[in-house]
Amino acid sequence: MSEEPTVIGAGSRLTEVTEGEWAGWLTWAGDAFEQRAGPFYERRDADGRMMSAFRAEPRHMNGAGFMHGGCILTFADSALFSIASDAMQNSRGVTMQLAGDFLAPINVGQLVEARGEVTRGGGKTVFVRGMITANGTPALSFNGIIRKISDR
Amino acid sequence: MSEEPTVIGAGSRLTEVTEGEWAGWLTWAGDAFEQRAGPFYERRDADGRMMSAFRAEPRHMNGAGFMHGGCILTFADSALFSIASDAMQNSRGVTMQLAGDFLAPINVGQLVEARGEVTRGGGKTVFVRGMITANGTPALSFNGIIRKISDR
Amino acid sequence: MSEEPTVIGAGSRLTEVTEGEWAGWLTWAGDAFEQRAGPFYERRDADGRMMSAFRAEPRHMNGAGFMHGGCILTFADSALFSIASDAMQNSRGVTMQLAGDFLAPINVGQLVEARGEVTRGGGKTVFVRGMITANGTPALSFNGIIRKISDR
Amino acid sequence: MSEEPTVIGAGSRLTEVTEGEWAGWLTWAGDAFEQRAGPFYERRDADGRMMSAFRAEPRHMNGAGFMHGGCILTFADSALFSIASDAMQNSRGVTMQLAGDFLAPINVGQLVEARGEVTRGGGKTVFVRGMITANGTPALSFNGIIRKISDR
Repeated sequence: MSEEPTVIGAGSRLTEVTEGEWAGWLTWAGDAFEQRAGPFYERRDADGRMMSAFRAEPRHMNGAGFMHGGCILTFADSALFSIASDAMQNSRGVTMQLAGDFLAPINVGQLVEARGEVTRGGGKTVFVRGMITANGTPALSFNGIIRKISDR
Repeated sequence: MSEEPTVIGAGSRLTEVTEGEWAGWLTWAGDAFEQRAGPFYERRDADGRMMSAFRAEPRHMNGAGFMHGGCILTFADSALFSIASDAMQNSRGVTMQLAGDFLAPINVGQLVEARGEVTRGGGKTVFVRGMITANGTPALSFNGIIRKISDR
Repeated sequence: MSEEPTVIGAGSRLTEVTEGEWAGWLTWAGDAFEQRAGPFYERRDADGRMMSAFRAEPRHMNGAGFMHGGCILTFADSALFSIASDAMQNSRGVTMQLAGDFLAPINVGQLVEARGEVTRGGGKTVFVRGMITANGTPALSFNGIIRKISDR
Repeated sequence: MSEEPTVIGAGSRLTEVTEGEWAGWLTWAGDAFEQRAGPFYERRDADGRMMSAFRAEPRHMNGAGFMHGGCILTFADSALFSIASDAMQNSRGVTMQLAGDFLAPINVGQLVEARGEVTRGGGKTVFVRGMITANGTPALSFNGIIRKISDR
């Protein structure tokens, strides 16, 4: 069992991790399911593009010993918003559609990363496609649609 | 916070719940992620068809206060195998593809259920489509493809 | 090669067919691609729900002798709007997303039909899922999302 | 209305076009639907990767005057096999699943191109994702699954 990182300001949205493997990354500390399923981490890479990551732990596995499809899709749903964050321009949004092709199993100890691109932004609907890798090997090709919502 | 049900024989695959709201239902007690994300429950309904269910708890919610898309998709991935269980004929399988249209938010306290049908079985590939409802209202229309694998 | 039915008022939108196998059905006579790819026909069934149909001809086949996936998806895209027609309430719309699982090949001479349901309407986005059958056998399970657009 | 190119050896599979805008490209001359819906053309680009293309004509349009979604998806289904051609290693195959996100309308006269990549090959199932552009603008993000079949 891994130690879970210390987060600060858990009531807020994106929180910077201050210790451990993920120090310097951001996490959605106020998102109960995402913290429980992951936690997942995100930051800008050297090219300025958002990427997401976490390390596969025993708690993420299914009964057959590899990562549960639901865990991978939860990470994809999280990465969807990370990839779209510039296109969202501070709007909130909801997932309208999410689909994934499972390309390879993910095992305990592997570094799981997600990268992608906005294929259409600009309006109220943001289209994203991305790829999740495990130690660099493609594991889930995914695409999703986010609908911006007004905050009022 | 709800009490989590007592399960017996946690090392085995499908385990009958013996106490609480889900007494008489089956759960994948040996599936670490599914127990953590859910747990989810399944049984045959009055028509003999498999159905899955769980109750929405605070731990299933995202930062905006409704159920995380990843939680709903994890439940869909679990329901996929429940719906396909007769078509699987005791084979094991892996999810090859899963897609979902998000139709309505799910809130704390709601009864979440999944039902569906095998649209093509018989070979090594099983196609499923299903619907997740919350207190009876459609919340996720999903479809998935399972690939049977040999056990050896 | 089949005779193609006579349609009247080809400049308008939905046109009633007056002769041949499809007499009494409606077709999108002003839609160049759909007339060329199909034509496809639609009407309300005995339950008042929209259904679509056409008969598989040699011109719909691929090089292997069964119906081209693109022909089936074109029919699905047409059926999407037929299934959604009540939910559209006279708005125009565009397909935002369409996906299909191919369940069985379709052969020359078979009667191809599409039926489905709106899984979410009411707003600007209409979600549909449907099934295409060939002589009654499931051939394509599909789902799509329509975005209503203003006419101005 | 454009002149349709002259093709040679229409009974065979991939045929080289010898005249007109598409001279030097290959087309599936024996595929009745694809010739009728398109025709579509393919070749290796400067990097050795397969690409597909055609020019939007009035016959590809829907009743609203832009390209029919079914035409775009038919082109995507064709491009799927083009992108996968090296991974197919001379096997035949059928489309198991195809999905597309519609990003922008396509108009008469535009050059429509498709490029993509195999995200998983090597086994009996080939996963592909691709992008269709119109005059360089993304118009359809698509992904598909091909199942290899034995010839006999």
